[in-house]
Amino acid sequence: MQSFESLARQFISQFAVRHFPEQPSTLYEPNEYFLNLGGKRVRPVACLMGNELFENILPDAWQVANAIELFHNFTLIHDDIMDKSPVRRGKPTLHEKYDQSTAILAGDVMLVFAYEYLNKIGKEFLHKILHLFNKTAREVCEGQQLDMDYEKRKAVTLEEYIRMIELKTSVLLAASLQMGAILGGAGERNQQLLYEFGRKLGIAFQIRDDYLDAFGDPAKFGKQVGGDIKKNKKTFLLIHAYSVSSAAQRNELDMLLQQDSPDKVEKTLEIFTACHVDEWALELKNKYFREALEHLDDIAVLSSRKSPLKELAAFLIERDH
Amino acid sequence: MQSFESLARQFISQFAVRHFPEQPSTLYEPNEYFLNLGGKRVRPVACLMGNELFENILPDAWQVANAIELFHNFTLIHDDIMDKSPVRRGKPTLHEKYDQSTAILAGDVMLVFAYEYLNKIGKEFLHKILHLFNKTAREVCEGQQLDMDYEKRKAVTLEEYIRMIELKTSVLLAASLQMGAILGGAGERNQQLLYEFGRKLGIAFQIRDDYLDAFGDPAKFGKQVGGDIKKNKKTFLLIHAYSVSSAAQRNELDMLLQQDSPDKVEKTLEIFTACHVDEWALELKNKYFREALEHLDDIAVLSSRKSPLKELAAFLIERDH
Repeated sequence: MQSFESLARQFISQFAVRHFPEQPSTLYEPNEYFLNLGGKRVRPVACLMGNELFENILPDAWQVANAIELFHNFTLIHDDIMDKSPVRRGKPTLHEKYDQSTAILAGDVMLVFAYEYLNKIGKEFLHKILHLFNKTAREVCEGQQLDMDYEKRKAVTLEEYIRMIELKTSVLLAASLQMGAILGGAGERNQQLLYEFGRKLGIAFQIRDDYLDAFGDPAKFGKQVGGDIKKNKKTFLLIHAYSVSSAAQRNELDMLLQQDSPDKVEKTLEIFTACHVDEWALELKNKYFREALEHLDDIAVLSSRKSPLKELAAFLIERDH
Repeated sequence: MQSFESLARQFISQFAVRHFPEQPSTLYEPNEYFLNLGGKRVRPVACLMGNELFENILPDAWQVANAIELFHNFTLIHDDIMDKSPVRRGKPTLHEKYDQSTAILAGDVMLVFAYEYLNKIGKEFLHKILHLFNKTAREVCEGQQLDMDYEKRKAVTLEEYIRMIELKTSVLLAASLQMGAILGGAGERNQQLLYEFGRKLGIAFQIRDDYLDAFGDPAKFGKQVGGDIKKNKKTFLLIHAYSVSSAAQRNELDMLLQQDSPDKVEKTLEIFTACHVDEWALELKNKYFREALEHLDDIAVLSSRKSPLKELAAFLIERDH
């Protein structure tokens, strides 16, 4: 069994090649630029780990891992346009560096190349892998749409928010693990348990992300605390604060959301703390994290094979930054 | 053998169903709206015809035909954003009727659904069909990129323009025919001949389109003549006019391109006629049309099976509108 770190290193090194043709350079240079922005490559590595849970890592798992990473980057390119984000990983986003049309088209062709990596796997699992990939891709689009819809709405329930997060981020992690398991010949039940492990881990990860944005240590977090609050982003924290706060606190939250005062972050955090939103969020995160690990425990393979996935879970959830 | 009209009627009727889930309606209603704008559905019908050239039409050919039509609509949705087109088939384009983010995402998910139709075909030809589909999708993106690049350039050679047209429009028609042929069990040589038939037909079609925009009968053409000239579009006609005109004519063309005078179309057409651009274009169109039919003749099946494809060629090229 290989550790998460070791597999990540191997994936990053084999992925650091040119994935696109030379010409037309006006289309493919932007793609190469975007891939070179880097990233933790968590999803493709999850595919390799899902594979190694059941079998020595097969060549097909590397192809699917490449497809997953290209798909993920396709969503980032298009999301950046929709969210009007100027910067990603400290560098200009594609539509900023080039132009919007180039970014749309670069994303499109990146998705097509993802499918061509999928097409390199053997006949045996092609239908199944493609079906899961398509279902996941469709759900990720649905999640992005819901995210945009919810931005325009005042009230979003916790259930709606969790479902959106699940679609937008969890299902890709879950499906990446499951695709590895499919290629490893895992049975249906083991596949589903691994999928659920990934799905709940993804939700726990997002809760932690929302939590850290408000309550994290700026020195460790690496970005300014309160970014979500400044942008009026609906997060686990804000949604819960609305549901448990007093009428007076709700009024104050309403006012804070409508303005851009210098003490907006501070005042919002005061309400969050008064409502014990921080403790609630950590508990909710721990609940999903625990459930994720229970699913992993239930998978019918030797427990020693599961240690890299436990490492992955810890890497995603327990770190402070 | 079924006629082009009969197959088109059948395809249109089986395609006129709901292709997307109900929810989230903010994502999928736009998709249904766009598909309901209609269209001649030439490409999917070409797939059915490519299939019937070699075999009774198989269920898999209908799945691939659906995939092709969804793919084509995905390209239209995204091209409309890039070209800032407000209207398609007399109705608002997606980004006009909804917003740009919705149009980007609706296009993305339409492409994913195209791949799921492909995934419904049997194991035997899945790899081959997917590979041709991916190659074609990639080329269509390249063609759109070149089209945008050339808009910003002053000089484009005839060879460059033909290659762009080939990528942007011909290869999808050619590949649609070939995918039908693959499913029909055609041999490699017959497949290639059919592909070449489609590729050259596509180029002939575009030359005719450029010609009609300048020299067509407005009553038959259905749109105002000279639209391309008003928009300074690089067409077969303009590119050829630059290459054969005198220095004085080139200067006048340069001036006409820089202004928006009321007699811009008339003056440009005068130069085109003086340079015999109209005759040249008809000859070039006929050359590609002839070569297309020669490839069709060379295909090793009974000539009676080829009559629907000859109808298709006539439908695309010889009509006046």
